[in-house]
Amino acid sequence: MYPYRQLFDFAQEVFLCMGCPPKDAKLAAEVLLEADLRGVDSHGVARLSGYVRLWEAGRINPKPKMRIVHETPSTATIDGDGGLGLVIAPRAMDIAISKAEQVGTGWVTVKNSNHFGIAGYHAMEALSSDMIGIAMTNASPLVAPTFSTERMLGTNPIAVAIPAAKNPPFVADFATASAANGKLEILQRKEKKAPVGWIQTKEGQRSTNANELKEGGALLPLGGDKTHGSHKGYALASIVDIFSAVLSGANYGPWVPPFVSFLDPPSDPVGEGIGHFLGAMRIDAFRPADEFKKHMDNWIDTFRSASVKKGEKSVLIPGDPERLMTEKRLKKGIPLLTPVERDLEALAKRFKLKL
Amino acid sequence: MYPYRQLFDFAQEVFLCMGCPPKDAKLAAEVLLEADLRGVDSHGVARLSGYVRLWEAGRINPKPKMRIVHETPSTATIDGDGGLGLVIAPRAMDIAISKAEQVGTGWVTVKNSNHFGIAGYHAMEALSSDMIGIAMTNASPLVAPTFSTERMLGTNPIAVAIPAAKNPPFVADFATASAANGKLEILQRKEKKAPVGWIQTKEGQRSTNANELKEGGALLPLGGDKTHGSHKGYALASIVDIFSAVLSGANYGPWVPPFVSFLDPPSDPVGEGIGHFLGAMRIDAFRPADEFKKHMDNWIDTFRSASVKKGEKSVLIPGDPERLMTEKRLKKGIPLLTPVERDLEALAKRFKLKL
Repeated sequence: MYPYRQLFDFAQEVFLCMGCPPKDAKLAAEVLLEADLRGVDSHGVARLSGYVRLWEAGRINPKPKMRIVHETPSTATIDGDGGLGLVIAPRAMDIAISKAEQVGTGWVTVKNSNHFGIAGYHAMEALSSDMIGIAMTNASPLVAPTFSTERMLGTNPIAVAIPAAKNPPFVADFATASAANGKLEILQRKEKKAPVGWIQTKEGQRSTNANELKEGGALLPLGGDKTHGSHKGYALASIVDIFSAVLSGANYGPWVPPFVSFLDPPSDPVGEGIGHFLGAMRIDAFRPADEFKKHMDNWIDTFRSASVKKGEKSVLIPGDPERLMTEKRLKKGIPLLTPVERDLEALAKRFKLKL
Repeated sequence: MYPYRQLFDFAQEVFLCMGCPPKDAKLAAEVLLEADLRGVDSHGVARLSGYVRLWEAGRINPKPKMRIVHETPSTATIDGDGGLGLVIAPRAMDIAISKAEQVGTGWVTVKNSNHFGIAGYHAMEALSSDMIGIAMTNASPLVAPTFSTERMLGTNPIAVAIPAAKNPPFVADFATASAANGKLEILQRKEKKAPVGWIQTKEGQRSTNANELKEGGALLPLGGDKTHGSHKGYALASIVDIFSAVLSGANYGPWVPPFVSFLDPPSDPVGEGIGHFLGAMRIDAFRPADEFKKHMDNWIDTFRSASVKKGEKSVLIPGDPERLMTEKRLKKGIPLLTPVERDLEALAKRFKLKL
């Protein structure tokens, strides 16, 4: 178990060593660690060495000059200048929030960025201003559209955070694939099979082999197959891709550059870097915030107390498991798998830091 | 087979007989018939008698005085005055579009409305202005949240329409349940079983009985079960519910009034009528429209030509099947099932009209 503070400080030091300005290093560490706190272990410090390798390969700019390349009162398009998504996305969200303060809502699309950590962090940024926050990003292609054998889309997550009054906020944050790649990695480590409906072989046949992606297979869109609505998951992932990248001028679909440094980015890019889409809607642009939040409390209480099937405790509100995990890990620390510990130790050695 | 024009004229006459002003009757007929054209047979003239019965029960106001109750430069909240959603929603979308013209994007939430036909119609309204259109609505509860045995959410659809240049637009329009109720109705008529993952019994057990809803069962959120991501479908349906109703002041969750006149609306409403959420984003609020549409063409061409698994013809772009169906039905006419024909004949008799 590692105390939150220890991992935060370490990540911050690593980002400083990469050449990030102090403010950026702190912000990047905060966004990255939020994943570990919320139990999205695949997106936290487990990725730190990945960011470092991309930086070593010259594919992350530690001192980006982020700029607005296009705007209207309610929108902006941002060029992230190849910076860390962990830094670019929160700043883009700040712009969305300040536009919402002015004209009710703010919508920002971002090009020329990199992986932005968990979408939920960015959506939740809006909560303290009594706004609804929305965050999406595209990602390197792992998911095959319905009927296809090709990996054309990332696991393209959507996050929506909605404030309540007495209750904790509603925070949905999910990949638009049946299961995110992180879940497969867990099965791989445990040498377990994957459920039918998560992956397919390279010929497009159903598979339970958790290593199928390494053999040319693909993840499946939410829904799994056509009968169970995979065309809906495919549509959702496509919408995320288009809002994040076609709207901003980033790479889309199969052109999205890989997160890993050992795979080269496509030689024929259709845009710059990866793309994000961020939105903020002021509650009182629609209805007095107190009134809304009182009804959100009622919504949450009503759903939480709905009757459950045998064997289940209660209906969960989106964000419940992650909030409980955060409370637990802030108290008891963050567990790391041995390979992740080794990774961090190697980084400590590389940069002459103490873990 | 019925020519489009014949059914359009008939629907328009029926709405006139209900007391709708001529402009409204025409608009309502157009929205309603769009469902029949696009092959969403459950939402077209098959519902005409349902609207009439709700009007007879005093639950639809044929002469609504729709008004903006709250607004900012990029948002508005509309009171639909109990009117037909078929009329209120397009007018609300017009407001979203005109706000987008002014400040880049427009977002309108609607309360005190009724069923608005297919979501896709409203989203597509934005296309001719080179905007992305978004439409959602809540609906009467048929779907159980993950782990629950209770029907708490409607099949709450999401539609997103995105313009291209040479290619037809991208038009996603889907229920956030595994399968919309209309698909179950088809199986019921054919006395066929439903696939596992669409419905559950009233105890929350998996079922293939297409009549399960009549026995207290529930539809399942997109994903089907927790393993396959039903918590994502549940989150999506919840977001639609909250944006459409908690934001506007309509009824939400289990309080959404039923579409059928033989079931009473809840005696303890938490808002007024049902709710919709409509959005329009001007493409050139982010990027020159020509540039965007050229990339959308490339996006569409790339996905359409992705390799397919054995037995499939090609990857479809959201909106393809509905567009082909529209072309076919405009040429060859719209087929109606016998019970729907009977329904229309009864309406003709009731209002002394010719079908």
